[in-house]
Amino acid sequence: MSAGKIKVAVIGASGYTGADLVRLGVRHPHMEIVALTANTHAGKPMEEVYPHLAGLGLPRLARNDEVDWADVQAAFCGLPHGTSQEVIAALPEHVRVIDISADFRLRDADVYAKWYGRAHTAPELQEQAVYGLSEHYREAIRDARLVACPGCYPTATLLLLLPLVKAGLIETEDLIIDAKSGVSGAGRGLKQATLFCEAGEGLGPYAVGAHRHAPEIEQELAVAAGHEVTVNFTPHLVPMSRGEFITAHARLAAGVTAEDCAAALAERYAGEPFVRMAPDGILPATQQVRGSNFCVLGVRADRIAGRVILMSTIDNLVKGSSGQAVQNFNLMFGIEETTGLMQAPLFP
Amino acid sequence: MSAGKIKVAVIGASGYTGADLVRLGVRHPHMEIVALTANTHAGKPMEEVYPHLAGLGLPRLARNDEVDWADVQAAFCGLPHGTSQEVIAALPEHVRVIDISADFRLRDADVYAKWYGRAHTAPELQEQAVYGLSEHYREAIRDARLVACPGCYPTATLLLLLPLVKAGLIETEDLIIDAKSGVSGAGRGLKQATLFCEAGEGLGPYAVGAHRHAPEIEQELAVAAGHEVTVNFTPHLVPMSRGEFITAHARLAAGVTAEDCAAALAERYAGEPFVRMAPDGILPATQQVRGSNFCVLGVRADRIAGRVILMSTIDNLVKGSSGQAVQNFNLMFGIEETTGLMQAPLFP
Amino acid sequence: MSAGKIKVAVIGASGYTGADLVRLGVRHPHMEIVALTANTHAGKPMEEVYPHLAGLGLPRLARNDEVDWADVQAAFCGLPHGTSQEVIAALPEHVRVIDISADFRLRDADVYAKWYGRAHTAPELQEQAVYGLSEHYREAIRDARLVACPGCYPTATLLLLLPLVKAGLIETEDLIIDAKSGVSGAGRGLKQATLFCEAGEGLGPYAVGAHRHAPEIEQELAVAAGHEVTVNFTPHLVPMSRGEFITAHARLAAGVTAEDCAAALAERYAGEPFVRMAPDGILPATQQVRGSNFCVLGVRADRIAGRVILMSTIDNLVKGSSGQAVQNFNLMFGIEETTGLMQAPLFP
Amino acid sequence: MSAGKIKVAVIGASGYTGADLVRLGVRHPHMEIVALTANTHAGKPMEEVYPHLAGLGLPRLARNDEVDWADVQAAFCGLPHGTSQEVIAALPEHVRVIDISADFRLRDADVYAKWYGRAHTAPELQEQAVYGLSEHYREAIRDARLVACPGCYPTATLLLLLPLVKAGLIETEDLIIDAKSGVSGAGRGLKQATLFCEAGEGLGPYAVGAHRHAPEIEQELAVAAGHEVTVNFTPHLVPMSRGEFITAHARLAAGVTAEDCAAALAERYAGEPFVRMAPDGILPATQQVRGSNFCVLGVRADRIAGRVILMSTIDNLVKGSSGQAVQNFNLMFGIEETTGLMQAPLFP
Repeated sequence: MSAGKIKVAVIGASGYTGADLVRLGVRHPHMEIVALTANTHAGKPMEEVYPHLAGLGLPRLARNDEVDWADVQAAFCGLPHGTSQEVIAALPEHVRVIDISADFRLRDADVYAKWYGRAHTAPELQEQAVYGLSEHYREAIRDARLVACPGCYPTATLLLLLPLVKAGLIETEDLIIDAKSGVSGAGRGLKQATLFCEAGEGLGPYAVGAHRHAPEIEQELAVAAGHEVTVNFTPHLVPMSRGEFITAHARLAAGVTAEDCAAALAERYAGEPFVRMAPDGILPATQQVRGSNFCVLGVRADRIAGRVILMSTIDNLVKGSSGQAVQNFNLMFGIEETTGLMQAPLFP
Repeated sequence: MSAGKIKVAVIGASGYTGADLVRLGVRHPHMEIVALTANTHAGKPMEEVYPHLAGLGLPRLARNDEVDWADVQAAFCGLPHGTSQEVIAALPEHVRVIDISADFRLRDADVYAKWYGRAHTAPELQEQAVYGLSEHYREAIRDARLVACPGCYPTATLLLLLPLVKAGLIETEDLIIDAKSGVSGAGRGLKQATLFCEAGEGLGPYAVGAHRHAPEIEQELAVAAGHEVTVNFTPHLVPMSRGEFITAHARLAAGVTAEDCAAALAERYAGEPFVRMAPDGILPATQQVRGSNFCVLGVRADRIAGRVILMSTIDNLVKGSSGQAVQNFNLMFGIEETTGLMQAPLFP
Repeated sequence: MSAGKIKVAVIGASGYTGADLVRLGVRHPHMEIVALTANTHAGKPMEEVYPHLAGLGLPRLARNDEVDWADVQAAFCGLPHGTSQEVIAALPEHVRVIDISADFRLRDADVYAKWYGRAHTAPELQEQAVYGLSEHYREAIRDARLVACPGCYPTATLLLLLPLVKAGLIETEDLIIDAKSGVSGAGRGLKQATLFCEAGEGLGPYAVGAHRHAPEIEQELAVAAGHEVTVNFTPHLVPMSRGEFITAHARLAAGVTAEDCAAALAERYAGEPFVRMAPDGILPATQQVRGSNFCVLGVRADRIAGRVILMSTIDNLVKGSSGQAVQNFNLMFGIEETTGLMQAPLFP
Repeated sequence: MSAGKIKVAVIGASGYTGADLVRLGVRHPHMEIVALTANTHAGKPMEEVYPHLAGLGLPRLARNDEVDWADVQAAFCGLPHGTSQEVIAALPEHVRVIDISADFRLRDADVYAKWYGRAHTAPELQEQAVYGLSEHYREAIRDARLVACPGCYPTATLLLLLPLVKAGLIETEDLIIDAKSGVSGAGRGLKQATLFCEAGEGLGPYAVGAHRHAPEIEQELAVAAGHEVTVNFTPHLVPMSRGEFITAHARLAAGVTAEDCAAALAERYAGEPFVRMAPDGILPATQQVRGSNFCVLGVRADRIAGRVILMSTIDNLVKGSSGQAVQNFNLMFGIEETTGLMQAPLFP
């Protein structure tokens, strides 16, 4: 256990993910935020960009090149994908990096290039990167210099499906992942689709068959399955700020029941502080995890014989982003894994 | 075409469905609302129960037994299921009935008893009842004395799936119907789950594997398929008042493409005033139909070869309930089908 | 009464106001939309910009200079303030104009310059413009070539206060107008403050002491009072798409009671189709007018002796904008004033 | 500073306030929740009533009479008003009580009887009770056996107005308190007005001139002013779960400016951990305090000379209820006042 405070920088602190990192970081007993960067807002106090973070004694926003990196031990990087790889490549070697962007999640450079429309510029860093799904890559994360935190959808989906696929309890063919997300997943950038009047009082799908979290899910399911997997991934935009829900529809392996799946998940996560089954008789719902680092899972038999309905929910900005980043930071610096992350969900 | 005004009663006018019927009915050129009933509110002016309906010259709420049925030509019945059958059985034969409850939707008395936990008390009426999915039972509806309007989920689902199942374009095995609904679908009754603080800012599934709209969907798909069908039907509660979205995940029949499905739906509904495909390049969303009687459909190829993602959206209170009831009323009384129903959606 | 259809253009059809005008216009029996303009979207079908308006047979969006104005009898102008004056000045004289922008609302050129930061470029048009508060300028509107529709806040405020100020029932000193609006009032432009995640699940004031609707309210109150009036106008942004609520706090004139105020308002609007008092015992709320052209008023005695609480609610996009514009159009073209505007509110 | 853990009971743990107390309490380093009571849910695990509180190792819900009070040092009481007084009167003397209900807030028994419609049954307890506005009754709270935590509206209002009234900076005549609250203020009880479909997408006032928080505000303002005060208190229901906003409109004392008010508030709260002025140039908004124990204040000059607009915002369930209760608990037990309460707000 590290005795003192680790000096951290938050790169790209003006996005929702950066702000949520700061929210968690300022109360973390072993974290000292020494730098916040946001090139377009450089020079401003953080409270001008995020008034809810006033009064916390935060450093002013700065440009990346204004930071004295000699003084920084860890950097959280919340930049948009595409920019992270160059910024991270330029950091001194002693800075350990928890990347929340998508830049280092895909191990296969060709898959990256296909989905992100450009070649990766830091392939050697990619090779070092550890996929930061804390509950499944814990040991590798401890020693990593660069952790690539999973996307929000992959986090919720993989926590749900990996144990079942690994154990061969569900088939990997025709895996339907019907996903629902709050609007904060789209970030703070100005887009017509995320205006209050556009996203409010309504629901619709987006990026059907084309969402960049699909290859990330497939990459990890393939590791678990031992063979290539192609999934249906159908995200929907829900009129709520935070929260993500995965409804996965799967065919059970021969002889397997929904109860078997529930038991396998319960067993796999029995010792985990952040992942748990929904209480008896209660279905998971995003309201059960809002503002927290928890993931709640649920299983129900389908009306169609031999099929199962698998459910998972997280707060996309916490377990799906900043919270898992802090969890990985804890692992990397030998701090008790739950430090700074045990806030109970905010309901209502 | 009927020249004058048809005298109608709205039975169970204090529910959301009844209120929406009144909203549509007061502007319908061939409808005269002569009675509104709601036993628990009998004696009150409608504006006391629904202030948004003030100033419309509506009759006071009355008990069912206070209505002079001799003067009534048509009755809309928006009572909770279970009560409708008795009330409707007691109506004089000359009153043509558009039932919005679930009581006469299931043709098989055993299926009804299984899902509603009691034997049907008016099986002879059940036999006369015509299933009121306007676009698919139009001719039978014209001559019916009793029309059983479909549930909201079945309406959106069957408009989407019936033409494809009939044409054999999709397989009926492993049909996944992942559904999302606004809160008004749960009615105005007091339930903890539909309080603002419970349903707001969150999403979760409910009645997984146990929703009463499943047997209704299966009944009609079986007619189309020519054999029994069992579906996965997984509804979710969305923090919005109105709107319903169906995301159906299906395996294509051999040799069939998503484009074939889209073409088949476009062709089937080419002449229909209320059902249409989403504009090119745009996915359906509930925002496109709010407050209107329209249904918008969409089709996308799945990333999994041989599969298709089928989408449908309606306003659950209009096309999914009161609007379709008015559409059926128009059919029954020889009025132009679109009368009183052509309001454009309300957005934002 | 005009027998046939008036040919209209909607200038600036890509804003929320333009879209709502189209929603109302397509069902108006005496209106034919022959042109929709939006320079930045010129060439697109309207359904690409507003999918909820698909299937209505609308003309494609065009640039202003592409319209054949010879064929147009009336133009609704929903452009941002500042641009309207030039566009309207360039229209041929035979085109009667219903302007929904702020450009012609302020009669005093100095006041305009002060609040809008630039001199008015069409002062001669300004002199012809009639302030389009339908219930209070009805006769002048009938004959106007150019009607300047009031802002949404002034509409709700003036319908409430004008009769009381005219009759000397309330004092015009220390008039507090605490206003609350849904987010659609801010338009479809991309602003951080109107993102779902920023405006959702929260409320705050904006433009305190600096909102451009204040001088408009003061202009009309001054006419009614016969002397200058300065008001407190404090708007708040509410997490809802549509709806506006005015809570005005006023001192009663000597000897006047809250009941006197209520009676005066009831009497003033007794014959008006769109303005009415809330039902007995019920307070006004935006839910009572959503999607409709109605305005609902309420009056309560204050706990402080000699003071009164005055309330008014409208749908900001309908009575506060497009609906009142259509009402004025009806007046200008000798059409029954309520034509196309009698939809009952949409609730829930 | 107390070294160990104080054993606490939460009486009335099934309400939103009780749940929020548990949320805060389980992470409080000096609090051990040994009993949770809720007569109607007695016997159930807390997670059945509040699934978001699963996995926290909480005691089962019990009846009040099942609690071993010998083991309890402090009781939080979140019962509905009217019931608290009897329950608290029955507690053993060694149990120190933090009451969140309204039962002990009004010092004057006649005022209580008038507003709550019944005589107080524990007037001797009432005399001991200390009004728990932490920042203004800190010393008395430390020694109190019974603390009556203020209502949510009084908390936000009094933090804003007390220093100004005490200093004579604003007049106490014609004080307008236009208040806005999220729906959670109405509790978890089943009421039509707080259904999602009723409260959603709309805003309206309620309890105008009749809200029970008015006499509480007046009681404390009278203490500060040295004379009776009657206020206008006009609450509105806002479609959000949490958050409360006060917009107070006041006349300045002769020669006083809005800047003077801002300076006085800034000075008064300079050393306070939970109350602060909004950042320069930024208006307060509920989004700045959601989920936290902070109160943010703002001041703006009115357009009317000699008047000022005063603003205050809190999370009604935290600083307005459970958070302030914990703050008082800390004071009563000699624990650092901010313990367990320094979570940064949750945004978005």
